[in-house]
Amino acid sequence: MFKETNTQSKMPKISSRAVEMPSSPIRKLVPFAEEAKKKGRTVYHLNIGQPDIETPKCVLDKMHHLNLKVVEYSHSAGFQSYREGLAKYYKKLNIDLDPNNEIMVTTGGSEALIFAFQVCFEPGDEIIIPEPFYANYNGFATTSGLNVVPVTAKIEDGFALPPIEEFEKKITSKTKGILICNPGNPTGYLYSQEELNTLRDIVKKHDLFLFADEVYREFCYDGATHISALTLEGIEDNVVLVDSVSKRYSMCGARIGALISRNKELMASALKFGQARLSPPTFGQIAGEEALNTPQSYFDDVIEEYVERRNIMVDGLNKIDGVLCPKPSGAFYAIARLPIDNADKFCQWLLEDFEYNNETVMLAPATGFYASNLGQNEVRIAYVLNKTALHSALTCLEEALKVYPGRV
Amino acid sequence: MFKETNTQSKMPKISSRAVEMPSSPIRKLVPFAEEAKKKGRTVYHLNIGQPDIETPKCVLDKMHHLNLKVVEYSHSAGFQSYREGLAKYYKKLNIDLDPNNEIMVTTGGSEALIFAFQVCFEPGDEIIIPEPFYANYNGFATTSGLNVVPVTAKIEDGFALPPIEEFEKKITSKTKGILICNPGNPTGYLYSQEELNTLRDIVKKHDLFLFADEVYREFCYDGATHISALTLEGIEDNVVLVDSVSKRYSMCGARIGALISRNKELMASALKFGQARLSPPTFGQIAGEEALNTPQSYFDDVIEEYVERRNIMVDGLNKIDGVLCPKPSGAFYAIARLPIDNADKFCQWLLEDFEYNNETVMLAPATGFYASNLGQNEVRIAYVLNKTALHSALTCLEEALKVYPGRV
Repeated sequence: MFKETNTQSKMPKISSRAVEMPSSPIRKLVPFAEEAKKKGRTVYHLNIGQPDIETPKCVLDKMHHLNLKVVEYSHSAGFQSYREGLAKYYKKLNIDLDPNNEIMVTTGGSEALIFAFQVCFEPGDEIIIPEPFYANYNGFATTSGLNVVPVTAKIEDGFALPPIEEFEKKITSKTKGILICNPGNPTGYLYSQEELNTLRDIVKKHDLFLFADEVYREFCYDGATHISALTLEGIEDNVVLVDSVSKRYSMCGARIGALISRNKELMASALKFGQARLSPPTFGQIAGEEALNTPQSYFDDVIEEYVERRNIMVDGLNKIDGVLCPKPSGAFYAIARLPIDNADKFCQWLLEDFEYNNETVMLAPATGFYASNLGQNEVRIAYVLNKTALHSALTCLEEALKVYPGRV
Repeated sequence: MFKETNTQSKMPKISSRAVEMPSSPIRKLVPFAEEAKKKGRTVYHLNIGQPDIETPKCVLDKMHHLNLKVVEYSHSAGFQSYREGLAKYYKKLNIDLDPNNEIMVTTGGSEALIFAFQVCFEPGDEIIIPEPFYANYNGFATTSGLNVVPVTAKIEDGFALPPIEEFEKKITSKTKGILICNPGNPTGYLYSQEELNTLRDIVKKHDLFLFADEVYREFCYDGATHISALTLEGIEDNVVLVDSVSKRYSMCGARIGALISRNKELMASALKFGQARLSPPTFGQIAGEEALNTPQSYFDDVIEEYVERRNIMVDGLNKIDGVLCPKPSGAFYAIARLPIDNADKFCQWLLEDFEYNNETVMLAPATGFYASNLGQNEVRIAYVLNKTALHSALTCLEEALKVYPGRV
């Protein structure tokens, strides 16, 4: 469905922005997965960050007892009560925020980033992003006409922040911001205080915005602590936080996020974009507000589960001959280097031509997460399935690598 | 809250697009309304299209019996079952659509229009819109960097489509589209077959896109029939429809709309923007799909109610000395010309300085609905309150016009 045709396009023409807009690298293999399933094959979906974890019970209960007669718009910045609840949530993280002008509820983290880009960038401006990075950042950049400039984080370093010199080399008169995802999708890497201080210094020196996507904040493992960009001192007007309930409470479909900044001018401008689209979703906001009451035990259980899954997956991958997979400290993704010629070919071959006990595995080629031409022999793995499924998926992958014609 | 400061802005600077983004003309009087309420005054809200009509019972019941364990993403184009349901809905209107590549579910009509503009326009392109028009079209245009060129519909003509010569005069090499809202917000005007044929001819002649916002389709009065732009022959690749459940089922907060076109290239491109933002809201889609089962009796009752409200409001307005208000055939808005010096001043004065039996009325100054400098003595009235409230609001307005210092 929705195929772009190769026939000569009729007038009126679509825009060059629409032509340049990248397709989702995560979703482009979907037709091959559908074909495999039609053949009766089990496909283990490690390709997409849709967790199987249940949404907190308090949220589902709340939705069953809605007392609405009219499903009305909310304030364009979101329900006042929800913003106040979010301020209390951040207060627990030692972050003081004013719910009246520093927090704006958005339609997912996606909209928060779209608004931030619209407010902060002129068309033609540049944003530096450590790669590999979340592929949809490219799409949001295209929407606002800004250019993504990558700085490469290396798999050999476990995807640590590249040295400051690498950033300095990329800064031009067009550079207006740096974007990080912490902990990272697709790497799972968690930035240290020292790395964040490096970013603070470079941002301050060059008057840049620092966009921090912290939607995986709760998912930190092995005793590691998440440090929010909002705690960095001296760059209060530069930091723009993107948040979301999607992964935190396993409710991706609620489409509720938040745009947060202490830069009042930025927030006042973002609200104008928010007013144009009227309001974030009412049902999702009700769910998001209730989710603030999720007990700590929910997170303890989820984190325990993810640590076990990560260990199964990453340890299992590293035991396979020729595979390298740094062990991430956060989120629920890992990037693995495989002994293959081309990740796009390999991922398609897994779905089209391979099966082991009538099962196969769907992975995301890492090429879509690099802005430069890297990642040709890397894949992103989302460990969002139960442990039994992960073991089976690992077996599939191991067997596949034995017989893949493009093995190197 | 969210005030833009006048102090010298710190580096880094926000974008010129953010500076140019218009504030919502409908919402900018809100602080004055809040002040009036703090003084204990009743404020009749005729300023915003938030109906008091109840959401259909089937929808509210459905939400009480959700059987979800995980609130997952949907397909980026929306649930397949919902798209199939929408195709059946349009089929009843004698419009054949393929749910697989001609219908995309969006986050409200707003997102549909944002995607359409992104796909169809280069920055600097021009779109012609008959004014007065829905103010947020300006915001969506700013987001995509396109310029709005108004063609003025006249209150003396009841806001009928301006003559074709007026359109021809405005067409340049930059013109790529015409946007209509039918029935119209803020005019309530319903276009005839002849007027739509005029638009068809001009669109075809100049290879333009025709964007049709038909979110008020069901609200047609006095036996008038709505004619969809999708039924116009010979411009199948030019027509882009924007739809929404917000007003149809009185569920504005669901944030569910649709982008519809038979132009496959356009739809395939729009899907890429849809993939970047992942999916429309899951709860809202469930509500939207259930709303397709709303019985005809619901609409019969709602339309009867709106006709009565319209008659009270419009007939009442025209009885006031110096007031002119064309009687609309659709939607639930009317534009009225008042004997006043300045609508912005008058609307603020109503909230700040006027009361009648400790009550006042909130209206939307029409200036925000014109791209040219017109509408200075016009207001938009949304007849979304019950009949008792409308009578009281009319009395307030009549008394206010007797004592307003800027009466002309």
